[in-house]
Amino acid sequence: MTDKARTAKGSSDPNRAPVFGELRSLLGDRMRTDEGIREAHAGDASYHKPRLPDAVVFPACNDEVSKIVKLCARYRTPVVPFGTGTAVEGGIVAVQGGVCIDLSRMNRILRVGMADLDATVEAGVTRKQLNRHLAEAGTGLYFPVDPGADASLGGMTATRASGSAAVGYGTMRENVLGLTVILADGSIVHAGGRARKSSAGYDLAHLFVGCEGTLGVITEVTLKLARVPEAVSAAVCAFPDISSAVNAVIELMSTGIEMTRIELLDEVQMGAINAYSGFDYKVAPTLFFEFHGSESSVAERVAAAGPVTDRHGGEDFRKATGQKERDRLWQARYDAYYASQTMRPGSVGFVTDVCVPVSRLADCILKTKEELKTSTLIAPLFGHVGDGNFHVVFLIDPNRPEELAEARKFGERIVEFALEMGGTCTGEHGIGLGKLAALEQEHGEGVRVMQAIKKALDPLNIMNPGKVVKV
Amino acid sequence: MTDKARTAKGSSDPNRAPVFGELRSLLGDRMRTDEGIREAHAGDASYHKPRLPDAVVFPACNDEVSKIVKLCARYRTPVVPFGTGTAVEGGIVAVQGGVCIDLSRMNRILRVGMADLDATVEAGVTRKQLNRHLAEAGTGLYFPVDPGADASLGGMTATRASGSAAVGYGTMRENVLGLTVILADGSIVHAGGRARKSSAGYDLAHLFVGCEGTLGVITEVTLKLARVPEAVSAAVCAFPDISSAVNAVIELMSTGIEMTRIELLDEVQMGAINAYSGFDYKVAPTLFFEFHGSESSVAERVAAAGPVTDRHGGEDFRKATGQKERDRLWQARYDAYYASQTMRPGSVGFVTDVCVPVSRLADCILKTKEELKTSTLIAPLFGHVGDGNFHVVFLIDPNRPEELAEARKFGERIVEFALEMGGTCTGEHGIGLGKLAALEQEHGEGVRVMQAIKKALDPLNIMNPGKVVKV
Repeated sequence: MTDKARTAKGSSDPNRAPVFGELRSLLGDRMRTDEGIREAHAGDASYHKPRLPDAVVFPACNDEVSKIVKLCARYRTPVVPFGTGTAVEGGIVAVQGGVCIDLSRMNRILRVGMADLDATVEAGVTRKQLNRHLAEAGTGLYFPVDPGADASLGGMTATRASGSAAVGYGTMRENVLGLTVILADGSIVHAGGRARKSSAGYDLAHLFVGCEGTLGVITEVTLKLARVPEAVSAAVCAFPDISSAVNAVIELMSTGIEMTRIELLDEVQMGAINAYSGFDYKVAPTLFFEFHGSESSVAERVAAAGPVTDRHGGEDFRKATGQKERDRLWQARYDAYYASQTMRPGSVGFVTDVCVPVSRLADCILKTKEELKTSTLIAPLFGHVGDGNFHVVFLIDPNRPEELAEARKFGERIVEFALEMGGTCTGEHGIGLGKLAALEQEHGEGVRVMQAIKKALDPLNIMNPGKVVKV
Repeated sequence: MTDKARTAKGSSDPNRAPVFGELRSLLGDRMRTDEGIREAHAGDASYHKPRLPDAVVFPACNDEVSKIVKLCARYRTPVVPFGTGTAVEGGIVAVQGGVCIDLSRMNRILRVGMADLDATVEAGVTRKQLNRHLAEAGTGLYFPVDPGADASLGGMTATRASGSAAVGYGTMRENVLGLTVILADGSIVHAGGRARKSSAGYDLAHLFVGCEGTLGVITEVTLKLARVPEAVSAAVCAFPDISSAVNAVIELMSTGIEMTRIELLDEVQMGAINAYSGFDYKVAPTLFFEFHGSESSVAERVAAAGPVTDRHGGEDFRKATGQKERDRLWQARYDAYYASQTMRPGSVGFVTDVCVPVSRLADCILKTKEELKTSTLIAPLFGHVGDGNFHVVFLIDPNRPEELAEARKFGERIVEFALEMGGTCTGEHGIGLGKLAALEQEHGEGVRVMQAIKKALDPLNIMNPGKVVKV
């Protein structure tokens, strides 16, 4: 928090005293302007410069969120929804100050539908909280979207999060059935629903999934659940070079061997996780796999995957079927981002994330690795390659602006490569503050449509202003 | 066409002569105002009263569609996109006259991505055309969304179509990766893309999927493809009563036996298809199943399904593994709507469609069947019950308005039942002209949001006016 405090100190904007008075009347001590709380809501898990909101509020229900937003609208005060602050494109940075709505007290699991495999939760429920609840209640169900961090389900919805299991279960896009959102005028809208399909009017639920708080505050989400698989098997396999590893992925995906996770870590990243997590993996481009299903179908698929990795020079296909061994393996993968940062003590990670059609994944990664050779920065590469999605983390010294500039330049080049190959400027990190220009490059005329929708639903531009689309 | 001609005759609106002159300059003989062509574009496959458009145009590319829409905007002329006219909520009826854009000449398959399992097609390509192409090219791939009719893929996208295979493969919502749409100002927008996931800004692609032409004309679609399964097995199973059949569905869905299709036909409908297709099925509530997968996984699942249907009194679990036998079986299911109409010669079908969480399916269907007992109309019930989606067809005499009124009243009651049970007023037929009030009942405040979006993107209200949301 020290870094954040350094760059974003200051008192709350005194011009905002009237709205704060009203918020305090509404919320009592769940309306906070003390610097410690504001600091804790100033920045996310990324390099983006923190900025303190003027106040942080902790509503407990839809009605309170509605009243907060109405007050903010009346006083033209920016509203920034906050889940756990674990995203990486600056989406929750209060660039224009205003009121941060921390949804952590809206943390009730409202219902679980055993026969329907669905659940409705308040936005502040984290994915681990939901999964603990489902396990303790012996439902045999779980929520499979897994971005690594124990993010809130509202935040995951707002950022269209995905993560390592998306190749098997889809992203938040595929797993949100409905949601409740508080619009810029304080109206409470229920979008989507519990039916598995509907052709009733515009698909508002999917408009709000991924809007990053710029169209409204998501307060409740109805999610699809999955059955805990009968059998799970994991495996790790090292390759002589990155091209072999990625070509194995392309072949595995196109031959249709169902996988729940298929992750690539390059040799730089493998060195980092060995050091960070005490593993002894070969320092080489490596694929991590996970297979879910019945005992027989998992065995069938593991058996089918082996020869494919062999053909591409994969060595040492290490299986991990025990829960403990698997947990350790995946923890290493989740720690990749943190592990990478220990390669350069004191550094912060400038992370970028693109996604391309799987057929172009080798081209895009090889071009990126080639480009990285010209950088002076350490920059591990890893990703959810089954979806064509990968990340590069540039380890930069936060006190050297030239390093940030260099990372930005490389980030822009990687986005260019992805767009040339029919891909997208971000697979799962979102636009936030960091990719406004990239969104323009990717969607051009589409950004005009996004702006028109933003203006129609938030005419005062109070909802997380400055993010996703500039208006 | 005689019925249509009867109810919707007349010359083109003479006030529209200037726009027609310009359209003729642009398109030559691909701009038509003769009555035969206009009649062929006046109505869909439903009871909704046809209305002739003033002109029908046949563009060949995005640029032409853009120019047509720009001309229509300049002359405040309604634009009605037309695929194959096989939908059932009056979505293509030119209620305010104007220009019908028939997309059938935009019928090129633009690309097939073998490794990426995707294809980009023009809007006029029909699903059977795409599947023939994929089969003839030996790709081993196919497009699985199957609404029965050989609809155009643009029309299926615009109506968020689904059909019998949605329980296995999802609806158009899950199978459209990207699209090109011509907006009300003629701008050409590419939404979504080819990457399997993206968090780049608002999910415009999913806003246009299901907009029924009211936000723009969809001209190209990028679709996910599926692998032709190694093995397919189908089965038919009769039940002593509808409640047993539906409870079998609920148990099958909640125990997670993967199925590609699971269809219910009630005893009224079974009688109709026996008569129509020459089958000798028992005249009882019946489930039709289909399983896709590897030989072993299909066998495993068929074996698991049998005991569940047995437990619910299912009898005579008839397997059909041969392609020909399966085709005949599914043809009977597809013919359900047409078969039902032969039960009362000269009748037209007033069809309604709701979808509820699967756990409430028995409640909703039983309540509906109970209600139907009080109707004098013949009204078979069938549906895609794995998704919780079912249809009722009221066979009405088109010359007796009291029958239409009765069907409407029952239709409204069924929607009420579905909404009470957490369902939606339409699972797959859309809003069109027929369910504007039901959409209001279901989404209330959400309809205000839809209207705001409609006004923002189509300020002159020229895009398929009068459908989905009134502005």
